Amino acid sequence: MAKELKNLTKRADNYSQWYNELVVKADLAEQSAVRGCMVIKPYGYAIWEKMQHELDSMFKQSGVQNAYFPLLIPKSFLSKEADHVEGFAKECAVVTHYRLMNDPNGKGVVVDPSARLEEELIIRPTSETIIWNTYRNWINSYRDLPLLVNQWANVFRWEMRTRLFLRTAEFLWQEGHTAHATKDEAQDKAIEMLNVYGDFAEKFMALPVVKGVKTANERFAGALETYTIEAMMQDGKALQSGTSHFLGQNFAKAFDVKFINKENQLEHVWATSWGVSTRLMGALIMTHSDDNGLVLPPKLAPIQVVIVPIYKNDEQLEQVNAVVDPIVAKLRGMGISVKYDNADNKRPGFKFADYELKGVPVRLVLGARDIEAGTVEVMRRDTLEKHVAQLEGIEEYVKNLLDEIQANIFTKALNHRESMTHKVDTWEEFKEQIEKGGFILAHWDGTTETEEKIKEETKATIRCIPMDAEEEEGKCIYTGKPSKRRVIFARNY
Amino acid sequence: MAKELKNLTKRADNYSQWYNELVVKADLAEQSAVRGCMVIKPYGYAIWEKMQHELDSMFKQSGVQNAYFPLLIPKSFLSKEADHVEGFAKECAVVTHYRLMNDPNGKGVVVDPSARLEEELIIRPTSETIIWNTYRNWINSYRDLPLLVNQWANVFRWEMRTRLFLRTAEFLWQEGHTAHATKDEAQDKAIEMLNVYGDFAEKFMALPVVKGVKTANERFAGALETYTIEAMMQDGKALQSGTSHFLGQNFAKAFDVKFINKENQLEHVWATSWGVSTRLMGALIMTHSDDNGLVLPPKLAPIQVVIVPIYKNDEQLEQVNAVVDPIVAKLRGMGISVKYDNADNKRPGFKFADYELKGVPVRLVLGARDIEAGTVEVMRRDTLEKHVAQLEGIEEYVKNLLDEIQANIFTKALNHRESMTHKVDTWEEFKEQIEKGGFILAHWDGTTETEEKIKEETKATIRCIPMDAEEEEGKCIYTGKPSKRRVIFARNY
Repeated sequence: MAKELKNLTKRADNYSQWYNELVVKADLAEQSAVRGCMVIKPYGYAIWEKMQHELDSMFKQSGVQNAYFPLLIPKSFLSKEADHVEGFAKECAVVTHYRLMNDPNGKGVVVDPSARLEEELIIRPTSETIIWNTYRNWINSYRDLPLLVNQWANVFRWEMRTRLFLRTAEFLWQEGHTAHATKDEAQDKAIEMLNVYGDFAEKFMALPVVKGVKTANERFAGALETYTIEAMMQDGKALQSGTSHFLGQNFAKAFDVKFINKENQLEHVWATSWGVSTRLMGALIMTHSDDNGLVLPPKLAPIQVVIVPIYKNDEQLEQVNAVVDPIVAKLRGMGISVKYDNADNKRPGFKFADYELKGVPVRLVLGARDIEAGTVEVMRRDTLEKHVAQLEGIEEYVKNLLDEIQANIFTKALNHRESMTHKVDTWEEFKEQIEKGGFILAHWDGTTETEEKIKEETKATIRCIPMDAEEEEGKCIYTGKPSKRRVIFARNY
Repeated sequence: MAKELKNLTKRADNYSQWYNELVVKADLAEQSAVRGCMVIKPYGYAIWEKMQHELDSMFKQSGVQNAYFPLLIPKSFLSKEADHVEGFAKECAVVTHYRLMNDPNGKGVVVDPSARLEEELIIRPTSETIIWNTYRNWINSYRDLPLLVNQWANVFRWEMRTRLFLRTAEFLWQEGHTAHATKDEAQDKAIEMLNVYGDFAEKFMALPVVKGVKTANERFAGALETYTIEAMMQDGKALQSGTSHFLGQNFAKAFDVKFINKENQLEHVWATSWGVSTRLMGALIMTHSDDNGLVLPPKLAPIQVVIVPIYKNDEQLEQVNAVVDPIVAKLRGMGISVKYDNADNKRPGFKFADYELKGVPVRLVLGARDIEAGTVEVMRRDTLEKHVAQLEGIEEYVKNLLDEIQANIFTKALNHRESMTHKVDTWEEFKEQIEKGGFILAHWDGTTETEEKIKEETKATIRCIPMDAEEEEGKCIYTGKPSKRRVIFARNY
């Protein structure tokens, strides 16, 4: 297996293959027997759980409560919002029967033709329809609003080309669905939740993101406005990492959800929805990792510190154990997750490679000679630098180092993004630059037609109109028509 | 709405209706638009989250890691274990197509007949098959064992008669799936996890349970042995609350999962699986609640303490606020979840009824006069007793009261169970006693034939052979054949 660890393809040779291999070799996820569906392995799931935990607290702090809605949606519900069904109908898993039977001709177990559903059920690709159908009974008056609900769930979209975490038929996510008495309040909520996503990405994932608005063409099916956080991967491609939608009154109208306002008048309710998914795992992996394997931000690493003993005999091991045990206890007391790996059926070199592959942020190595000298070897995963530190006070040292690593990988990713973000003013330059990857800040005339032509010719899409885009007179790089601000173009995952 | 609260059917009048109404009125769950599928509302979900949190820590303490496996299972997988498919085929939701389309005849959105799957997919009713198909690639040697994995997931069984939480087509659960090198280790693990369930039920849910073994007839489809925890509801009916299965090598053989043992020989792997579900919510509600609404064990109550102010004007309210704020802060500091409800659009009487209905364990009521006297009115939900306590030290008082309530409702449920458990030695007495409800401890000849005849004649099933059943010579109440220990008969949910 040690040999296998080293066989990781290098990013420079084939970035895409490097990613696919890394996900599997680091025990994060694998393909299942069901087309397009993944198995999330324990190590990968432990990272996802940490993400869930942090996001869930942030949601709760903003007043959101969790609930659970059905997996299956009546086919007719999907059709009630015209754009929505257009967006999702082509990738729906459809339940048509509710029973199997033994084939009378002995061909094994077959679908029982007499157990056909009157109305087919769809596995939820997203839950706006079933949730707004439910909200109709929950909302009567302005006193019932705002309604701030989230669910953690699995969803299903029959994707033709899938990649672990980045695009799978089934994926795990959270979807928030809020209901409001006014348009402004709903719009503010959509932006508030986008900011929650932005904060989570930057503070926990160490993932710098651009917040912006999607063009009409890239909007969620049924939304009036889609807000997005966009990240840049190491190969310069963009990855949409979370979206928050202002849905206007579209779903309230489709499902007839009205409330009595303070003026005693009946009005349709205003809505938002917002979600992030296991796709974030893909962003996390691709942003920080290197040719030796994963690099995990300390705040999301299941194991933050690993300690490996070096010893020649049981006596030496006991000596090391005696020094390490109180360090482990103290680190745990500080809320740091530590693994002391003194298993004797693997050699230190194997352990080193394995924990590097798994992205453990800090490694301590300790032998009899270190103990005599009162020192310990510290390796930080982000830079792979080794350093000899004093044993005394090592816990504080490690704590500070974890913070430093968290900050460093964010800065590294930010610098990378900045170095690969270019203002471009001519079509020639655009076509040249897009081949090099990265974000292009360019003027656009605001039409879907131009957007689509640019995509056709260059595979670049408009990732977003940044929230903080300065007003600037300019000309569309493609049509030369007037434009008031630059938008971000990139190729994307 | 205050009026509506009082309309709760009394247990003595119609226990079943009382339960159905309570689940809805206390905002725990409701029927959805999809047959047999429920919506778990925020208050109900908050209780479920607390259960998940405690169970999840207990699993992790026993070395189990979480992972995630696909929602859909190829039809052919189900058939690989003969008993398993027999047990689940009749209640499977079947996915046959992966696309919708606009009907060419303008009938709206229809299933695209050209998008038919070659092999149908089943929504998991349980995941042994897909998981053991995955384990084949994870397990090569005894060094890969034991493998201790759990998943939190939704599952689907097309039940004909459903009731909120107790029996729904879709439900939430956890399913643990472990793999072992020896038969003994697997058997021990199955019992260890049963004990985890028993501890959780008794310590957190305040739910006394009998641990036992299921008869062959009541075993999980594919298991060699099924262990169970059985609880008694207030109407004397049994509720199976969690099961743990020793699967032998059945699934390893069906999916060809072998490992090289320490003697360098290839052997099939030994397995367990174990699960509890949102059905536990039903057990929780039915065990403790009364004609005024929910009674929640403090350890699982989303709100443990509610404080309601009494005031005539803003000045008085400010006075009360000034006293309550530090109490709230101190209680929160002690890890107690408090709600201070000083909303002025509801009257105290309405609040009292609402929090009673919602089962909040402790209520404090505080007005200007109390502040003068340095006292506060304390109401405990389990007995509805009111008591005037000193404001000074109220936080410790509340903490102790919460512990007392937790202990009291457990004792109450245990006494109820004991008062409704009877040793019965004749068939006449059996038939008489079963009409009165409760557990019957009786001798049984050990045959499925007798078990089924008893069920036919009395609707009583064997809930389990208790783990701690004493050896005792006796005669089967039905056939008079010899028996070595008593088993528990009851009617059940």
